[in-house]
Amino acid sequence: MINKLVIIGVGLIGGSFALALRKAGKVKHIVGVGRSRENMQRALERGAIDEIADDLPSALKHADVILLATPVGQLGGIMAQISPYLEPGTIVTDAGSTKQDVVRSAYSHLAGYLKNFVPAHPIAGAELSGAGAADADLYRGKNVVLTPLDETSADAVRQVTELWQACGAHVSQMNAAQHDKILAAVSHLPHVLAFLLMNHVSFSTEHDPDEPLHPDDPLRFAGSGFRDFTRIAGSSPEMWRDICLANREALSRQIDAYQKELAALREMLARDDSEAVERIFTSAREARRRWLENKS
Amino acid sequence: MINKLVIIGVGLIGGSFALALRKAGKVKHIVGVGRSRENMQRALERGAIDEIADDLPSALKHADVILLATPVGQLGGIMAQISPYLEPGTIVTDAGSTKQDVVRSAYSHLAGYLKNFVPAHPIAGAELSGAGAADADLYRGKNVVLTPLDETSADAVRQVTELWQACGAHVSQMNAAQHDKILAAVSHLPHVLAFLLMNHVSFSTEHDPDEPLHPDDPLRFAGSGFRDFTRIAGSSPEMWRDICLANREALSRQIDAYQKELAALREMLARDDSEAVERIFTSAREARRRWLENKS
Repeated sequence: MINKLVIIGVGLIGGSFALALRKAGKVKHIVGVGRSRENMQRALERGAIDEIADDLPSALKHADVILLATPVGQLGGIMAQISPYLEPGTIVTDAGSTKQDVVRSAYSHLAGYLKNFVPAHPIAGAELSGAGAADADLYRGKNVVLTPLDETSADAVRQVTELWQACGAHVSQMNAAQHDKILAAVSHLPHVLAFLLMNHVSFSTEHDPDEPLHPDDPLRFAGSGFRDFTRIAGSSPEMWRDICLANREALSRQIDAYQKELAALREMLARDDSEAVERIFTSAREARRRWLENKS
Repeated sequence: MINKLVIIGVGLIGGSFALALRKAGKVKHIVGVGRSRENMQRALERGAIDEIADDLPSALKHADVILLATPVGQLGGIMAQISPYLEPGTIVTDAGSTKQDVVRSAYSHLAGYLKNFVPAHPIAGAELSGAGAADADLYRGKNVVLTPLDETSADAVRQVTELWQACGAHVSQMNAAQHDKILAAVSHLPHVLAFLLMNHVSFSTEHDPDEPLHPDDPLRFAGSGFRDFTRIAGSSPEMWRDICLANREALSRQIDAYQKELAALREMLARDDSEAVERIFTSAREARRRWLENKS
């Protein structure tokens, strides 16, 4: 049982963490810190927090756990702001979608508190936003990856693990570089591909003076496959800008590898290599089938 | 009202056309032609066809309309087989996902019957297959694109238009090159991207000796965005091999353009151009929002 939990950034991610821990009976008092008065009021009404912080020093006083749940681009600044008020027993964790940059920020701004800092990433949908979308069951059955520093104490890792488990999540650990590489492949690259395809179809095909298109928008002829493929292109541009820039090294390596694979397929088409094309498509379908089987 | 409709290839597409026309009271007698006895029996039981053809000559005798609904790679061969038995008043149409290759096959194999040939593409989901998946409402609200030849008669176009409208579809016309370009962008390219991503994540990231991955499969950390993005990678490899090869010129141009756009984004990441990245993502989200609004 935690006596005092502080959530900095009470949106979908922070608000759902608060609601889940409250539902699990794991926390007595939750303090929210945020910039939008309207959103904080909403969090209060929904029971995600008990109190809107007046100022950072009093909010952090006697805190057992602080969750940093702002967009990833703001985490460095937040760490700098909270560091003067951290107490020796307070555990700090975050919910950022990238981890190497968060770890770098922690080395810069939380140097004296690394023992108590547990970088974490709950992998849960984020198309909705704000405290109004918070959901006590958001993390049920979802993965949460912890990427502890060498300096992080085993006790801090254990406590953060137990909190996420109380939310119903599967918790695993790896290092920050592994995390960023895996997420670049399974999440950041697909988002980039979807955003680009949406733009590609909406704009670039219209600008070919030699081959005028049907006056109708090509999108008129897009079906349900296109709709599902581009669903993630409906995600927050600001959030994904931050994620892609924060993880640009790993993401760029994924883009390079993917470009090579795309070029190889184009070559197969050019040489009319029906067998090779079918082999690629078949192995993809099989991989997806296995994945869905293992998932369920 | 059609007296005799012949469906060659009574799978999802052909079977659904038959069921829809029957439901609309537009056809008296439907004859099915197909290779799999089991599937044809299924089509008969489901009421999609009244009769399994014994041989092609008697099946085509006195036919008003013939729908070619086999995989696109087989259409040329089918045209060659049916052409000796076509009668002057019989209208031939197809349901192939690509059109320039179908038009080329028609010029080769149906030279004497071009007046009565109406190339068509019903844009409707095809993840299920076989007569068992046929559905009288599959085409309701869906687009059907006709790409008539210069030689096709207005009367043949009108008749095929009315049949598809009776199935509940929106019918439009364009030329085969426009069709193939638009479909390359909104359908064939996304399928290629999804198949490749599935392979990329399943295989290529595992083969980096310098940077060993977490022992867990990276797919363990893929979420619902990845699942939707790759849904179309569950499609039939044979069907998509045929489509990609049949439309390889238009598809290759789309791949080239997309690769340039991907390279441009990678450059923006390299120079940390936060504004440019956000602009791309924002315009993509807006384009998708507008599309969904116009669609509904």
